Amino acid sequence: MAANRQIVLASRPVGFPNDTDFRLVESPIPSPADGEVLVRSIYLSVDPYMRGRMNEVGSYAAPVKIGQVMVGGVAGQVAESRDPRFKAGEYVVGDIGWQQYGLAHAAALRKLDPGIAPISTGVGVLGMPGMTAYFGLLDICNPQTRETVFVSGAAGAVGSLVGQIAKIKGCRAVGTAGSDRKVDYLISELGFDAAFNYKTVADYSAKLRETCPNGIDVYFDNVGGAITDAVFGVINRHARISVCGQISQYNLERPEMGPRLLWVLLVKQARAEGFLVPQFMERWPEGIKQMAAWLEEGKLKYHEDIEQGIENAPRAFIGMLEGKNLGKQLVKIADEVFPYTVLSL
Amino acid sequence: MAANRQIVLASRPVGFPNDTDFRLVESPIPSPADGEVLVRSIYLSVDPYMRGRMNEVGSYAAPVKIGQVMVGGVAGQVAESRDPRFKAGEYVVGDIGWQQYGLAHAAALRKLDPGIAPISTGVGVLGMPGMTAYFGLLDICNPQTRETVFVSGAAGAVGSLVGQIAKIKGCRAVGTAGSDRKVDYLISELGFDAAFNYKTVADYSAKLRETCPNGIDVYFDNVGGAITDAVFGVINRHARISVCGQISQYNLERPEMGPRLLWVLLVKQARAEGFLVPQFMERWPEGIKQMAAWLEEGKLKYHEDIEQGIENAPRAFIGMLEGKNLGKQLVKIADEVFPYTVLSL
Repeated sequence: MAANRQIVLASRPVGFPNDTDFRLVESPIPSPADGEVLVRSIYLSVDPYMRGRMNEVGSYAAPVKIGQVMVGGVAGQVAESRDPRFKAGEYVVGDIGWQQYGLAHAAALRKLDPGIAPISTGVGVLGMPGMTAYFGLLDICNPQTRETVFVSGAAGAVGSLVGQIAKIKGCRAVGTAGSDRKVDYLISELGFDAAFNYKTVADYSAKLRETCPNGIDVYFDNVGGAITDAVFGVINRHARISVCGQISQYNLERPEMGPRLLWVLLVKQARAEGFLVPQFMERWPEGIKQMAAWLEEGKLKYHEDIEQGIENAPRAFIGMLEGKNLGKQLVKIADEVFPYTVLSL
Repeated sequence: MAANRQIVLASRPVGFPNDTDFRLVESPIPSPADGEVLVRSIYLSVDPYMRGRMNEVGSYAAPVKIGQVMVGGVAGQVAESRDPRFKAGEYVVGDIGWQQYGLAHAAALRKLDPGIAPISTGVGVLGMPGMTAYFGLLDICNPQTRETVFVSGAAGAVGSLVGQIAKIKGCRAVGTAGSDRKVDYLISELGFDAAFNYKTVADYSAKLRETCPNGIDVYFDNVGGAITDAVFGVINRHARISVCGQISQYNLERPEMGPRLLWVLLVKQARAEGFLVPQFMERWPEGIKQMAAWLEEGKLKYHEDIEQGIENAPRAFIGMLEGKNLGKQLVKIADEVFPYTVLSL
């Protein structure tokens, strides 16, 4: 029987993860039980939240154990189905993890229609990052026409969509990213009204006042830390802050101290709300339908950075944490097998 | 003509205010113009928010200028009215400030019915602090039966009501205060399920876990700082945090750093919202009616600490900032003149 190549957690990182925290192993390809589906992975998604799963202490989800396959969303194809809802060759997305083949309960898989968009979007604009942007902006922050929406991590998988949705809603979209190339992309390609490189701007407060002359009504925070501290200084009365990620904090060896921000919420009568996109799971069909329509209408663009080969998944993940990617970081680990061919294992 | 004794701001405090930051002055009693009412102050309210008004830089409201009368709510009596809605002798509450007599636009005054409760409650349980507790807890946090509500500054004018409203709503009410006497009052008199003295407890986290064995669903924060940091460590999923005050921070000479708390909101899918009670102004009649009904039914108790004499208002205010008061701190500066007597000025 063919081997299943997998990336497992080899050790718990202290601070920034490195290659040796992961290990490539081989194991037999499992067989589905009744109600299960064997998925052949094509695109692995690497996302910031995975860093949290590498820690010993769980936060909102259980940690990955040492020796366990790294978790994560995958767009792939059904290799073998023991559930009447799926048949071999169909495209699906599910939490398969960093491996060539994985089992999923049929109820936990979502079908992808490659006629709507490339299947890679199932872990991007039409998947978890897309829904994070959609609900995290629209539901948590309820942006209004002419309001200013500021997004940190604006060139990432989520942030790049947040700014574009803000524009669709008639807002001023402003963001920050970690390179001039990204800033150029945000303004020239995605239609952000302004953006700046947080690595080369010294005075965030001054830059925020310049790029957000009417203050900030909605802040979509992927990053936390110093940029967030500065944003709190320019939020408007009744501002809404969507706390989506705090990537600047994930790799610190010990927690960083910062200015106390609650008093800002008080004097600005503002709200900060953390969310996890699964809480909107029942409404994902609504979100995916709207995002697909915006794609179709040309109102939404996306960019994918694609690493090749499962052995390079750790590198892609680490690069994403370092901000090397533009838009969605993927790892392509197999080719699509054209529909409904029976896959030989 | 009789003199109007007033307390004006003499200097801007650096850190904790002291007596010399205030000055007692006398000025002529003013005369109302058309549409105005001259109010004779009986009870001055001293409240934490006034500390912010003493700073040079405004926050949500303009600062008091040097030489200007200290702002504040007053329960008093109409001395002279140039508006048909009010007549001399009627009891009113308004923003008169720390002075024996002050003018107000008729539309900015609210009548008090001494048949419902003593007029002092017009700046307490049936006034600004009462509405702060009512809307800040019920509207911002929507507490549900059997949830745990934790309140910092629990023995103050607002906090003592928050805990009692939580009990009325079927919640577990737990609080912290700054003396054993206050803690005893919360448990024995007000029916809090648990409370502790933050000045004598060394390990807030352990104490919170002990007193809130099911975690904290709702946090009503009057205090900020170290106690709030610890509360963030034990909040439950979907916790709601009402940011009402941050009194621990008001008298610091320079801003204090603290642990970053936004990631807690994220992993707990929790919300922190700042509010100012005027934002609920249109609904105050609803809140006052309900609080008066609970008073009448014996479900709500309140305590007043009353200082005598306008010259002692600064001392009462500073004592309140130091946490010397139990419940609502008032300054009584005149006696009630029994209704509809014409007041001779």
